[in-house]
Amino acid sequence: MAELRKDLVTGRWVIIATARGKRPTDFPPDVKENKGKENCPFCTGNETMTPPEIYAIRPNGSAKNTPGWTVRVVPNKYPALGIDFPLTKKGTGIYDQMSGFGAHEVIVESVDHEKTIEDLSTEQIRDVITVCQDRVQDLHKDVRFRYVLLFKNEGPQAGASLSHPHSQMIATPVTPKRVKEELVGAEAYYKQKERCIFCDIVAHEKEVGSRIVYENEHFITYCPFASRFPFEMCLLPKTHEMNFHESRTHVVEMAQCLKATMEKLDGVLNHPQYNYVFHTAPNLFPRRGYWQTIHEDFHWHLEIIPRLTKIAGFEWGTGFYINPVAPEDAAKYLREAEVSV
Amino acid sequence: MAELRKDLVTGRWVIIATARGKRPTDFPPDVKENKGKENCPFCTGNETMTPPEIYAIRPNGSAKNTPGWTVRVVPNKYPALGIDFPLTKKGTGIYDQMSGFGAHEVIVESVDHEKTIEDLSTEQIRDVITVCQDRVQDLHKDVRFRYVLLFKNEGPQAGASLSHPHSQMIATPVTPKRVKEELVGAEAYYKQKERCIFCDIVAHEKEVGSRIVYENEHFITYCPFASRFPFEMCLLPKTHEMNFHESRTHVVEMAQCLKATMEKLDGVLNHPQYNYVFHTAPNLFPRRGYWQTIHEDFHWHLEIIPRLTKIAGFEWGTGFYINPVAPEDAAKYLREAEVSV
Repeated sequence: MAELRKDLVTGRWVIIATARGKRPTDFPPDVKENKGKENCPFCTGNETMTPPEIYAIRPNGSAKNTPGWTVRVVPNKYPALGIDFPLTKKGTGIYDQMSGFGAHEVIVESVDHEKTIEDLSTEQIRDVITVCQDRVQDLHKDVRFRYVLLFKNEGPQAGASLSHPHSQMIATPVTPKRVKEELVGAEAYYKQKERCIFCDIVAHEKEVGSRIVYENEHFITYCPFASRFPFEMCLLPKTHEMNFHESRTHVVEMAQCLKATMEKLDGVLNHPQYNYVFHTAPNLFPRRGYWQTIHEDFHWHLEIIPRLTKIAGFEWGTGFYINPVAPEDAAKYLREAEVSV
Repeated sequence: MAELRKDLVTGRWVIIATARGKRPTDFPPDVKENKGKENCPFCTGNETMTPPEIYAIRPNGSAKNTPGWTVRVVPNKYPALGIDFPLTKKGTGIYDQMSGFGAHEVIVESVDHEKTIEDLSTEQIRDVITVCQDRVQDLHKDVRFRYVLLFKNEGPQAGASLSHPHSQMIATPVTPKRVKEELVGAEAYYKQKERCIFCDIVAHEKEVGSRIVYENEHFITYCPFASRFPFEMCLLPKTHEMNFHESRTHVVEMAQCLKATMEKLDGVLNHPQYNYVFHTAPNLFPRRGYWQTIHEDFHWHLEIIPRLTKIAGFEWGTGFYINPVAPEDAAKYLREAEVSV
């Protein structure tokens, strides 16, 4: 059973996944991604290789855990956090810990093993997004979950162990540190200016123009002014929206912007490995009073991080990043790359 | 010229190293470490391949930039931050930036190309430590430097581009985020308990015992309760010391503890790639009043991070880490590994 432990000095939570029981010899220097279709648990026809499905789009009304789906959600077979035991909290000497309570789901984005997210049609991406929104909304009903992180790992260096197109969702019993940093920053800005910090960034970026990668009527992608990584991008709605899962009015435009953005990344960097993560407001219920104002200023966004450089001692020791590509240069390359939509 | 840029939301600083001028095609998927002795700028006889030396131990009194040294400090040929221009600060639209002012030095730890830190004798490690302390002390004289980070990258996955044994030092004009998080946590603890948080951790770890890796009279290495990474370790002085560069009384014991710790890591994981970073108090001068109390509770320590697992979307998105090895298990393996000193 996994457990959550809190660092006494920094307050950072860590998941100790003891169930995985790794020994020193379990760490080969280079882990390869399983690229083959054979034995791929996400391929159609192999539905019984995953735990029983949670949710699926089945246009022809086929039975659960059989072929016929277009998007499918299943529990992660090797979950980082588990849902089958209570959330307990205790002190251990001078330290704090919790049981490893949470949820860990996989969203299989296509039946086609070879496709990547940008290969899918705008309509298929719209369906993937809608399914993800439905799952986040459902998980938010459990007030023990403080946050649901939706993310994608593409390529072995980015942590992917299976190449079949999929995203993941982890619901955690604490609001993650990186999200809190953004909430705190957005709140401080709002208190000072009575405006959403992300809305101001969008307005400023549109005025400057040099860091914009792509935009349609409702969504925009730009390279952040203080990008940590070469070709890092941020995609978000142009008008104020707190919650990703409530962003339902313009899902087709969101899908189209995501497809164009990822096609550009692919075109410029030739199938780079990357991670992307959605940052949205935390689950509202647990501390309604406390988080209320923060929620009103938060603005959901997608951070896209190509994995081109190594994280070394300086980055670990400082939290600083050294980015060898100016965001203005990255945006220029990306802006000029062609898209199919 | 590099520049520092501040993220508007989180306050995180980033170094945009525009001088490196990377294009999209400059990112091959796998960068290899240069292992050969030939053309190694850190090998003896190749002293002119580096910028002019800053400092060296030369037992026979040989001339600067010639053979005869045992430990040698030179400016990094490709510095992340530069010292040859003024520190300027300005606003850019809604954002903040600074010139990329700083210092970036390399400490060549041995003339022997093939050695690693744990292969060196305790006396040689003592000399390396003393040289590092002298350099930190010297850099602290410049009040524009808020912090000096000393760190080591071992292996290409850990960001090393040269295999000759060396460490690096980067002096920054802002106190890094990760250090600030520790300073803030240590201060809050001190305010509540009037005790140093690190001293309390050492006392607690000695009482519990299960996470201790190694100790001698003055230094101790343990696996942190909330270790982010498998086989992560922390080495620190048992009695309260704020500053690494002022830890001069027991340098031989520090060297011996470091050698034993790194021999254990090597023995258990068979030459793992790793980073280690020294966390010490920031430079005292700039804000004497403000940092005074914080300084008094801070306790320098060395964080050792083997690079065995990949950082994926969940970690980027949350700041949470998933560690598949319980620190108690890691400590048991490490404790049982033999050492030569």
